[in-house]
This record gives sequence, structure tokens and C-alpha cells, in this order.
Amino acid sequence: MGSCWVLCICFALFLSRAESCQNPGDLIKASSPGDIIIGGLFSIHTNVKYSHLPRRPEALVCEGFNTVGLIRMISMIHAIEEINNSTLLNGIKLGYDIYDTCTDVTTAVQATMELITSSSESCVEPHCKNTDFVPKVKAVVGCEYSEISIAVARVLNIQLIPQISYASSAEMLSDKRRFPAFLRSIPSDKHQTKAMVKLVNMSGWNWIGTIAIDDIYGRSAIELFISQATPMGICVDFKEFIPPVISDTIINNIIEIIRKEKRVKVIVAFASPSFMKKLFQAFEGEILDKIWIASDSWSTSSEVSALPNLNNVGKVIGFTFQSENPASFYEYLKNVKINAENIFLKEYGARVSGCSHHTGDFDSCVSNYTLDLCSLLEKKQEIQDTKEEFLLRNIRPYPAIFFNTQLAVQAIAQGIHDLCKDGKCHNPKVISPWELLDAVKKVAFTYEGKEVHFDPNGDPNIGYNIVMWKTDNGTTEVQNLVAQYDVDRDDFVFPDFTKKQAILDLQASQRTTKM
Amino acid sequence: MGSCWVLCICFALFLSRAESCQNPGDLIKASSPGDIIIGGLFSIHTNVKYSHLPRRPEALVCEGFNTVGLIRMISMIHAIEEINNSTLLNGIKLGYDIYDTCTDVTTAVQATMELITSSSESCVEPHCKNTDFVPKVKAVVGCEYSEISIAVARVLNIQLIPQISYASSAEMLSDKRRFPAFLRSIPSDKHQTKAMVKLVNMSGWNWIGTIAIDDIYGRSAIELFISQATPMGICVDFKEFIPPVISDTIINNIIEIIRKEKRVKVIVAFASPSFMKKLFQAFEGEILDKIWIASDSWSTSSEVSALPNLNNVGKVIGFTFQSENPASFYEYLKNVKINAENIFLKEYGARVSGCSHHTGDFDSCVSNYTLDLCSLLEKKQEIQDTKEEFLLRNIRPYPAIFFNTQLAVQAIAQGIHDLCKDGKCHNPKVISPWELLDAVKKVAFTYEGKEVHFDPNGDPNIGYNIVMWKTDNGTTEVQNLVAQYDVDRDDFVFPDFTKKQAILDLQASQRTTKM
Repeated sequence: MGSCWVLCICFALFLSRAESCQNPGDLIKASSPGDIIIGGLFSIHTNVKYSHLPRRPEALVCEGFNTVGLIRMISMIHAIEEINNSTLLNGIKLGYDIYDTCTDVTTAVQATMELITSSSESCVEPHCKNTDFVPKVKAVVGCEYSEISIAVARVLNIQLIPQISYASSAEMLSDKRRFPAFLRSIPSDKHQTKAMVKLVNMSGWNWIGTIAIDDIYGRSAIELFISQATPMGICVDFKEFIPPVISDTIINNIIEIIRKEKRVKVIVAFASPSFMKKLFQAFEGEILDKIWIASDSWSTSSEVSALPNLNNVGKVIGFTFQSENPASFYEYLKNVKINAENIFLKEYGARVSGCSHHTGDFDSCVSNYTLDLCSLLEKKQEIQDTKEEFLLRNIRPYPAIFFNTQLAVQAIAQGIHDLCKDGKCHNPKVISPWELLDAVKKVAFTYEGKEVHFDPNGDPNIGYNIVMWKTDNGTTEVQNLVAQYDVDRDDFVFPDFTKKQAILDLQASQRTTKM
Repeated sequence: MGSCWVLCICFALFLSRAESCQNPGDLIKASSPGDIIIGGLFSIHTNVKYSHLPRRPEALVCEGFNTVGLIRMISMIHAIEEINNSTLLNGIKLGYDIYDTCTDVTTAVQATMELITSSSESCVEPHCKNTDFVPKVKAVVGCEYSEISIAVARVLNIQLIPQISYASSAEMLSDKRRFPAFLRSIPSDKHQTKAMVKLVNMSGWNWIGTIAIDDIYGRSAIELFISQATPMGICVDFKEFIPPVISDTIINNIIEIIRKEKRVKVIVAFASPSFMKKLFQAFEGEILDKIWIASDSWSTSSEVSALPNLNNVGKVIGFTFQSENPASFYEYLKNVKINAENIFLKEYGARVSGCSHHTGDFDSCVSNYTLDLCSLLEKKQEIQDTKEEFLLRNIRPYPAIFFNTQLAVQAIAQGIHDLCKDGKCHNPKVISPWELLDAVKKVAFTYEGKEVHFDPNGDPNIGYNIVMWKTDNGTTEVQNLVAQYDVDRDDFVFPDFTKKQAILDLQASQRTTKM
């Protein structure tokens, strides 16, 4: 009755050895054993360095350490440890296999292929009769960028392995015909753009400009925004897309457009913090006085808000994902073991240690510090100073980064719980990914005081917090929670009247200057 | 010095056996041995049937036989046979592994994974010392839809295996940072939309509507069109996207918009032939008198042009890919062996044979005929009547379908030739895919009288033919080659003045009725 079909795919990459301790194709991972292994994909570095032209498969060199990605990874580990220490799974132990995507689609797809490798070493026969051959992971937490999540989803889809992203918000991923195994712990951009349109419409601003990253995320967000704004009589005066490599020409071009289009008082920006920083810096103190509507991608970025005299460029109202009380995670961060058998934490430790006497920008030193990965891989480095205050400083602007990741893990654990509660899991290793997918889609649980469930598209009932930036004496502070946006009620909720008034005042100030 | 790294991925899909001779995950392919194997991915069926909810990996059932996909496959085989019979490769024999994507991303990604399996059966060690372990295929020809090509490219990218698509025109695929191993034998939509904008602008039509498929192809084409049209002062009055499943409500909604927006005289449509047929039928003889600008996806579709009295809906001007003399391929088609060891040809033969006494629409019978794939897989079916006139009837409206596929094969063969000409290929099996990629990017050759090369984005110097539909006594004929669009010169070329006049007359007729 039962039939088993096995397809073995072997990649062979043979090359003259690069100047690296790694072979081409080697991926670095952090693992912990368990009865059920969950895969994790995080952007722990911001890009891959390709050294040759013509390109050929090379030893992977990742650049630009991304502390936010590291914090997400730590929060996945924290969530798994908390679940293992709880009674939720009745003794079934969760393990993990975590890879760094280096914010690169190819690297992410390659890591995904390693995640779906058979859990059995003996899998060599083209047709096998026993049931030991199941993918190594039962579910995957990741990825960050929608474009990467989409590519990963295409592969996980073959075996219907549940994938829960903590950050990919492109609307396209809600389409279950194309992405049947994809869920996420953040809302789709459809809601964010709807809320933005509502904000613009409430205010009477009718000429706006848009700036967005030139990728699936940015293009689809702007497409959504415009399709919802046009029927409301809101006119989009300019629509600029930012290529991946930001040159001075690109910045100057956008500056010229903003200067020229004087009737545009409101600019909606789905952009990266580094782009917004460069753009704001390039205005060099010029009084612009615009309203900037910031997407989740930069709405709470300390990289941008740390710039002096931001009141010159105008006011910033931003959208950020809802999250809950971070106290227990902050406590965990303080005690995280930097010298653990986790290569990513070791790398972080080595960077922090290398930068400890650095006199310039500490964040930038940690990100760009040159280190020898080979000696790091071999040595058991002991680092005394964990610099937890550095991690905390990096997490404070983004409380959602750990909440969304933990929620993804929690939903998977809840799915395993629901699947196993009838005593069906004598051997949890034989749970099929697609059975788990089905269970995860149906979960309903309370997490940090919030009732959580997914809609039929795999989107959660999680809304947005609205933040406002306030500049006093040249220094800007991000004021959290001036309002919330409830995706079920499709409306803003103000915690107190003074905050609603603050937004209305802002709008009024712009209306008076409207052309 | 040389190091070899092998990653083995095993998929195990075990399920209670479905009512099928296939196991879940089994893919059907057509193969021929050779020194160098080229992969082929074709849409030989139009969709995958998913029978269960909740979904789980199932035995693959593909529906809707696609004769155009079959013809493309035959043209790949024809091109390979012609090269093997020529002296181009100096005795190196090309073979192929051809899979049906069933126009489904997941199936295509799964087929791609089979294509990149190691060529050696003995690949089981995690680290091996010899150089036998190279991917089974050195290059891949495919796919049709951009969305499928994108997902496939993500996988082929890991090993930099050259992929040449014969039909995917989305602009995004020109981005070599994201798709370094992708080339195509048709121009990017950037050129098609540029030419459409030029056509609209030349004519003075300034209110237009757009209709497009709601996928990466349609959305990016419309995005491109609008971004080029807006600076010319052309206003887009409506922009409708068609979901994958076309209901009466969707058709009625679009009809209402077209009726309401009277000032729109020109409609640009990036849509499927089946949608356009349903739309035109739904107007039921109403006099619309619009100008329809047809993208390559339906510009020469006999499914649409066979509708009676198309002059009521208006005039159609379409874009189609340039192609050359089809005589030798038509001759090959006449003699194609239906009873060959090619499962797709066998299926075609069984369908044609089953429909031979059918009294209704023969094309629709061939597409939807129910057959027993299991007995087909086992039996050596002999079919006398090849119905080559059926294939010829299906190919005539689309001469480019075989030309583009053959051009893709020819470019790969030329790359192999260039790589081997210095006597470097004593053992052609050890050519690396990335060496071949590099060679293919640099090819410059003459094919069917045309000089062919690729630009740095992997896009060829191939332009468009402009077609016009002419209705006489209720019957419509597609008039090929009223003009050409040269992508290098970025302009139209008219073969004779009367044809230019025909387009100008058409434009004038609309200008007089413009609001």
C-alpha cells in the first residue's frame, strides 16, 4: 500500500580551491539536535561578495554583518528553548538547523536544498521501502525579503513543507494557488498600503509622491498603494524606484524631483534605512517640510532617526508591526552565550571584541570588521564581553523583530501540539511536513496575551503600530504607538485623544500650505 | 588543488498509492543519449490537477494538452538532430532530457532538480575526489512563462547552468545581478512596450486602457508600458488585471469598464488567447470599434481570430516575435515519428487517434481527450495517421514558436563549438556549465540568414514583427509582417508603403472619432 519514492540530487562543485577554508558551495550553519528539526533562514550578512568575472560558483564570502538578522536568529533559538522547557509538546524536543542567507537568493535556495535533504544518511536507492526517508526539517522559519521568500517557497512547495516568514510582506505571497505552503507572522502589505491610503485620505492631502525599492516588495507595495489611492481621488505625482546600488546620481535625481514637484507635500517611502539616510543627508539642511510616510522597512530605524535636525526635511509618520512586551527576551539577550557552538554568535563575538577599542562609529565597525572566518571556524574563541548593551541598542527600535520570529516558531510548535494531542506522535520523526502544514494553518492560540490565528491565505490577525518621529533641539525620538491599525476592523485605533490630535495637527499644518 | 564538493538531496514522498501508475513525485520525460545533454522544459500540458484538500504531494496529473508546447519540444529535438548531423560540433553528440512543466511552477522546479542531478549514479559520498560528478545537463532550454522561468533560474543559478528561454519576456530577467545564468532567444518586454508606446504616440491616441494577466509577466509589462507612456502625455484610463481563473463576473466587469470609458479608443492587452476569446464573445456582436494592441501572447492566436465578425469589436494590431523561413521544420514535422520512444509524442498520437472520428471541434477534443497514461507508458502504441496537418495548422499562426526554440539550441551548440574549437574538449563530459555559460554569452553566429548575438543582459538582437488582423465577410485573417520593429534602431521598419499607409489609415479613423 505505502509506496516510497526517492529522488536524490547531487550537486558537485569542483574548482581550484579559493583562498578560503571553505569549499565552493559550503554553507555555514548553526544546529541543535531534536526530535523534530525546524529550519531557519536569516539575513545575518547583508550581501555576498562575488570576486571573479566571468562568474563561476565560488567559496561563499558574505559581507556586512547584520545585527538585526542575528537578533532574529537568537529569538528563534530563544523561542525553541522556551518551548522545550515548557510542557506544550509533552516531551517532544525541538531542534534547529539555521542558515545565513547572506541576503542573497541563490544562497537562500542552496540552504533550502540542504534543509530538505533526507534525514537519513543511507538514502541512496532510487526506490526504498521504509519510511525513514523524510526531509530533515518539518518546517522552515524565514526569510526576510519577499523576493528571497518567494524563491525559497518554490522549493519547499514540492514537499509542502510549511514555511513561516517573520518579515516578507509582499501581497503575492497570500496567493495560496502559487504559495500553498507559505504563512507569515506579519500582515501582508495590502493592509499597510490600505492603512496609508486611509491616512492620506482622512487628511485631505491629494498630491503625493512615492519612492520604493526596485524589487518585488517595493514594486508591489507601490502598485497596491496606487490602485487603492486612485479611486479616492489621490493623485500620484511621481513614482520613483531605487535600484539596488545607490549612486549619487540616483540620489540627486530624486532630490531634483522632490524640489521640482512643489505641490507634493506627502511622500510615501518603501525604502531601506541606508537609502533614506543618504537621501536626508543629501538635502544638507534645506527646509523641505514634507510629510514622510514610512513603511515598516525604515519607520523605526535608528540609522535614520539619529541624523541631526530632521525637522528640516519634515515630519515622519511610520508603520511598524505590532509586537508585545520584550522583557523576557531582553533578559535572555543579556545572558546569551557568545562562546557557544554557534558560528554566527562566535562571529558576532569576534567582531564586537575586535571593535571594542574602536573610536569611530561602533555599529559600522561591527558591520564591516574584517575577520578570519577560518580561524573562527576552527578555534573555540572565548569572549568575555558580550556587549549585550549593543544588541539591546539594536533591538530597541524594532521590538517586532523578535516578536514576529518567536510567533512563527510558536505557531509551528502549536501545530505540532495539535497534531500530537491525540497521542498520534509516538514517533514524531514520521510526521509529514504536509500534515504539519495543515495543522499550522488551523492553529488558534494565545501568545503574549494576544489571540493568534491565520486566515485562509496564511496571513495572521496582526496589525500595525503607528509611530511618529519627534525632533527637539535637533535630536529625533521615535514615539511608539501613537495609533494602532486593526486589520480585522480595517481602521485606526488611538490609545488616547492627544495622540489623535497630534496626527490631525500635522495634517492641518500641511493642508494650509497645500497648493 | 582540485576540490570536489557534493551535496546530495533526497526527496522522499511516501503516500498511499494514488489511482495512477505513477508514484507521487514521478515526472515523465523524453530522453536521448549524447556526449553533452541539454535539458528542455516545455508546457506540454496547460495545468496540474490537484485532487485533494488539504493538499499533499500527489501523483502528478496534468490536464489540457498544449499542441504549441509539443511543437516547441519537437523543434528542440529537430534542432539537436540537425546539429548532430552537421559538422558544427566535430563529432560531439548532443543528447536531451525533456520534461513537461505542465505550466506549473512547482512541477518545473522539481523537473529542474532532476536535471541538475549528478550525471554519475555512484554519487553518494559527501566529499569525493574525482571529477565525474557534474550535473547531468550542461544547459537548459526553457521555460515558457516568465514566472516559471524565474523560479527555475533561481535553482540553475546555484551551479551557473546556462538557461535559454524561448518565450519568457519579463524585463526582470534581464537583470544579471539576479539572473546571471539566464539568456533568452526573444526580446525583453521592455522593447515591446517601448514599441507600443511609440505606436500609440505616433498616432495621437491619448486615452488608453490596459488589460493584463495578473502575474509577473502581465504586471511588469503594464508597469513598463505606463512608465514609458506617461512622460509622452498618454493617459491610462483603466488598468485591469485578470486573475488566473476567469469567471463570468470578471468578464462582465471588464466589459462594463470598456463600455463606460467611452473616451478610450485604444486598449493594450497582455492577455491569454482564451481570455481574449471569452471577452470578444461576451460582447455578442455589439459594435465597439476599438483599436486593440495585442501583445505576443495572443497577437496571432487562431483561437481568437477564428471568431466571426471581429470587425465589430474593432481592429487588432499585434506584436509577434521575428522568425525565419519555416520550410525545413514543416518538412520535419510531416515525418515526425509518432510511435517513437517519446511519451509526449505517444500521448499526442493517442489523442489524435482518439479524436479522429470526433465530430465537434477537433482542437478542443485533442486538448481535452481523456486517456489512460498508464497503458500509454507501458504499451508501444502504433499510430498510422500522424495528423501532421493538425500540427501544421497549429504552428502556422506562430512561426516564431519553433524559430525561438531552435535559436536557443543553436546558441548552446555554438557555445560548445566555441569552447571546443581549440581542441579543449577531448572529454566533452567535463565541460563545466559555467564555462559553457561564459561561451554562450559571447556567441556570434548566423542562423537562417540572421546574425545573432546577445547583449550583456543575455537579450538577443531579435525584434518584432507587427501584424494586422483583417476581417472580410465576417472572417478574419492575420496579416503577417505589416512592419518590423528593430530593437537596435528602436524604430519601425515598413516593408512597403501600402502597409505603412494601412496603419496610418487605421489611426486616422480613430482620431476622427476621438472625444
